[in-house]
Amino acid sequence: MPDKKLQLIPLGGLGEFGMNCMALRYGDDIIVLDCGMMFPEAELLGVDIVTPDFTFLEENREHVRALILTHGHEDHIGGIPFLLTQLNIPVYGTKFTLALVERRLEEHELRKDARLKPVKPRDIIEIGPFKIEFIHVTHSIVSCVALAITTPLGVIIHTGDFKVDPTPTDNTPFDLHTLAEYGKRGVLLLLSDSTNVDRAGYTLSERAVQPRLEELFNRADRRIVVSCFSSSIHRLQQILDIAAASGRKVGLIGRSMLSATEIAHAHGLIRIPDGLLLRPQDIMQALPSKVVAVVSGTQGEPMSAMSRIAVDNHKHFSLEKGDLFIHSARIIPGNEKAIGRMMNHIARRGAEVVAGSMNPPVHVSGHASQEELKLVLNLVRPRYFVPVHGEYWQMSKHAALASHLQGLGLEEVFILETGQTLELDHRGARRGAKVTVGRVCIDSGSIDDVVEDMIIRDRRHLSEDGFVIPIITIGKHTGKCEGLPEIVSRGFVSFEERSDLLAQARAIVSKTLDNSSHEERTDWGVMQEKIRADLKRFLNKQTSRRPLILPVILEV
Amino acid sequence: MPDKKLQLIPLGGLGEFGMNCMALRYGDDIIVLDCGMMFPEAELLGVDIVTPDFTFLEENREHVRALILTHGHEDHIGGIPFLLTQLNIPVYGTKFTLALVERRLEEHELRKDARLKPVKPRDIIEIGPFKIEFIHVTHSIVSCVALAITTPLGVIIHTGDFKVDPTPTDNTPFDLHTLAEYGKRGVLLLLSDSTNVDRAGYTLSERAVQPRLEELFNRADRRIVVSCFSSSIHRLQQILDIAAASGRKVGLIGRSMLSATEIAHAHGLIRIPDGLLLRPQDIMQALPSKVVAVVSGTQGEPMSAMSRIAVDNHKHFSLEKGDLFIHSARIIPGNEKAIGRMMNHIARRGAEVVAGSMNPPVHVSGHASQEELKLVLNLVRPRYFVPVHGEYWQMSKHAALASHLQGLGLEEVFILETGQTLELDHRGARRGAKVTVGRVCIDSGSIDDVVEDMIIRDRRHLSEDGFVIPIITIGKHTGKCEGLPEIVSRGFVSFEERSDLLAQARAIVSKTLDNSSHEERTDWGVMQEKIRADLKRFLNKQTSRRPLILPVILEV
Repeated sequence: MPDKKLQLIPLGGLGEFGMNCMALRYGDDIIVLDCGMMFPEAELLGVDIVTPDFTFLEENREHVRALILTHGHEDHIGGIPFLLTQLNIPVYGTKFTLALVERRLEEHELRKDARLKPVKPRDIIEIGPFKIEFIHVTHSIVSCVALAITTPLGVIIHTGDFKVDPTPTDNTPFDLHTLAEYGKRGVLLLLSDSTNVDRAGYTLSERAVQPRLEELFNRADRRIVVSCFSSSIHRLQQILDIAAASGRKVGLIGRSMLSATEIAHAHGLIRIPDGLLLRPQDIMQALPSKVVAVVSGTQGEPMSAMSRIAVDNHKHFSLEKGDLFIHSARIIPGNEKAIGRMMNHIARRGAEVVAGSMNPPVHVSGHASQEELKLVLNLVRPRYFVPVHGEYWQMSKHAALASHLQGLGLEEVFILETGQTLELDHRGARRGAKVTVGRVCIDSGSIDDVVEDMIIRDRRHLSEDGFVIPIITIGKHTGKCEGLPEIVSRGFVSFEERSDLLAQARAIVSKTLDNSSHEERTDWGVMQEKIRADLKRFLNKQTSRRPLILPVILEV
Repeated sequence: MPDKKLQLIPLGGLGEFGMNCMALRYGDDIIVLDCGMMFPEAELLGVDIVTPDFTFLEENREHVRALILTHGHEDHIGGIPFLLTQLNIPVYGTKFTLALVERRLEEHELRKDARLKPVKPRDIIEIGPFKIEFIHVTHSIVSCVALAITTPLGVIIHTGDFKVDPTPTDNTPFDLHTLAEYGKRGVLLLLSDSTNVDRAGYTLSERAVQPRLEELFNRADRRIVVSCFSSSIHRLQQILDIAAASGRKVGLIGRSMLSATEIAHAHGLIRIPDGLLLRPQDIMQALPSKVVAVVSGTQGEPMSAMSRIAVDNHKHFSLEKGDLFIHSARIIPGNEKAIGRMMNHIARRGAEVVAGSMNPPVHVSGHASQEELKLVLNLVRPRYFVPVHGEYWQMSKHAALASHLQGLGLEEVFILETGQTLELDHRGARRGAKVTVGRVCIDSGSIDDVVEDMIIRDRRHLSEDGFVIPIITIGKHTGKCEGLPEIVSRGFVSFEERSDLLAQARAIVSKTLDNSSHEERTDWGVMQEKIRADLKRFLNKQTSRRPLILPVILEV
């Protein structure tokens, strides 16, 4: 009988959206499952991305054996450069997932030393006391796996993100057979994706967007612009196929869109007919009725390619009257206003706007709805269940959804939040001690294709560089800045002593305002981002310091 | 042939969500259609509500004859106290709409002088050159009307907000007959609601929520808490009826919920069986399986009754394990995060969370979808069409939706934004001059049932009172404030000269932090609001000034 205990240590993503990261420990050996990031909430003004706090892993560095990845979305891999800087452990994932990781590591100049270990579905690897089988699942990104982790105490199934797509565009369905086999032999613990637990029924197949896209591509008589997530390779494949069938060439716009497509193509995961692609700079020269632009920046991110096109500030593409814009992506909660503003700018250019809520849809979710979640619960029939990937209320609903399994061997459901561990031994499972967790805010200095400086800094030592708050007062009627911008700061260089610097900083902010179009000036999200970027560059150059910058715009 | 021109002057609500207000001028005579407010965007930190700028009406004060209301939602009546303070014109609306206006006027001590003129559907009033008929329409609030305005140049139809509910709960359907009659005789201009233009098909009837609510009320074995808009009288009627049928008594919680119900009851618009209602303070004493609490605060507003219950900080009601929470309301774009946080707090108390996206639904929209919009376009068959109530991209879609009318007499569609006028004369319609418009930000000092000071101040003269920015640094690991809060200000009293005041203000902020629960402290929206409220009260008491207060929370 195994005498050591098994510990589940959630480091991120339980009770919060994004930065999924979970550690699993048996005796001394620790493996890490996924290592994601999240985009900051509006309250966290002034930082670009947020990662989990890796203190627990650093404190146990000699025991951490490996990082195992389920798929390549940012909320599952975005934290890897920051983790590997601390702990250079081997990273296991499918080839495509690792290629996306590689891209991130290259940006941080970490590629050389990284130990990336590709795996295929049905592969089994052994790491200390853990035997891990990779099980193919369907999701909005390609090459996704669930994990079946055999431990001395029993099997743990971690679904990763998934839906059960009966007709995936790559004709490779969810490997329900392997999951069923594990379920038949007995599973100790199931961890399953809670994202769409409030949706009844089944999530539509990725193929469900095809009829609507075909109809739109056929009726449009001018340029079509589709905005989708760059990692949505299935979606991109459908766009390419429909474009080819309707006689349109395709231009990819945005750094992440180009690189994701390149990676997918290099791994044989996307079929691109010869001569179908146009270079971004050639799109405007082609006949308007014969092109489609596929653009990154679905969430109204102020400096993304799509936001720049919306305010007619992109070097290669300009929207014109009669063009058609298709928003083929999820609206991530918190981004509705920014996306709405972007769509208003697009409509003002005279383009038609088609968004996801139409029926038939131009976007479908990649996450399982209630009936699929129940299917997985029924196939796996675990002894214990921990809902993952979701806000607290979603995990709580997922827990309730599993209650029908109580007659089928389910002993207990645990709703854990990040930092709350679960302990399992031969007697059963119970809540364990809490571990140190938290968020690390990172100020990257780079957004999509505006790469000017790639120095990524951990903001953990904020107090060292202090913060700067530019305050801009805009006249309600004039739309103009009233007087010079104010700047207040703490913990940064003393503006009393460096009045030259203060004067120049105020001039920088004024210049940013003057150089912006009226349309940009009415969009405060864009203005805050532009002011922050320009001031950051200036202050860093002058002082070699990188204070946190929080622009405040007041209307009088 | 009429020789004067007709002018349509949008003062709010076109190209922006909320604060609907439109002036109509023929020759010298001006009438105003609706006078709403909007809730500020996150960027407008520090103000409570926003109204249109009434400069145009003030400049033409001797010509403004009346205000005509379509219905009693805040985005159609919330600006009235601020308009009447400037211009005491008569106000026409249905009895229920005027009763809601009265409540607002009483808060501002304006009731005595106001000239409120009740009208009924099919009434026709004459004001100068305008003859206005009120046409009953269905919407989420009761007693709604569209307006048919006969002018010397032709008829203008303004739908107000509407859907075409075939089975309204009060058995009074949309008066399509009267609308059709106008259409048959010929309509010059149609203004129609664009809110749901991106939804295909028909909006569900208000009755569609009944099956789901019945099922939930029947299966719940403990307390039920329903959060809905206080003005949703149809919804409230259904909740009361289902509660009565399932043997539960009903407690209404929240100031606005109580007063809206009282008003509806006084006007015979809601049927409340004798003995069904419980006082708020008696709810917790009743058997848990025999009560329903109906609570205001659907949008996660930090100080609302529902948000207070969520963090277990309400004097009359406490959620317990096994209770059921039903969110029976729309999620207004921009509020997703706050509502998500509220639902997390509720789930942490052990209550089940049921939200609107379920099928069958616990909430249905009050706005018309595409097929209903087309029905109204087809019945009215206008010569000119101006989409109203929506963001620019929505109005733009509504314009496209009307294009099928081009063979049916439609000459032109105008997408107008707030401030852009339209001129009509015997030759036709065209864009006119722009007028001064904008937003007025108001800092009310009162939120829902926390009524401490009701002095409502126009923030137009912000420069007079200045602004104060408290900066709170919270330790990531400890969740505690690191050191004393910083406070910076401009245009307010000099903290250099009044260091006593600065020290006290910092102490106030510290106290607010100390007195908050851990749960509240992790919710930055709540903390910003609490700090703002406490500091505002203190500074106002000490200095008789009301600076704009923008709390900034930093995590280190």
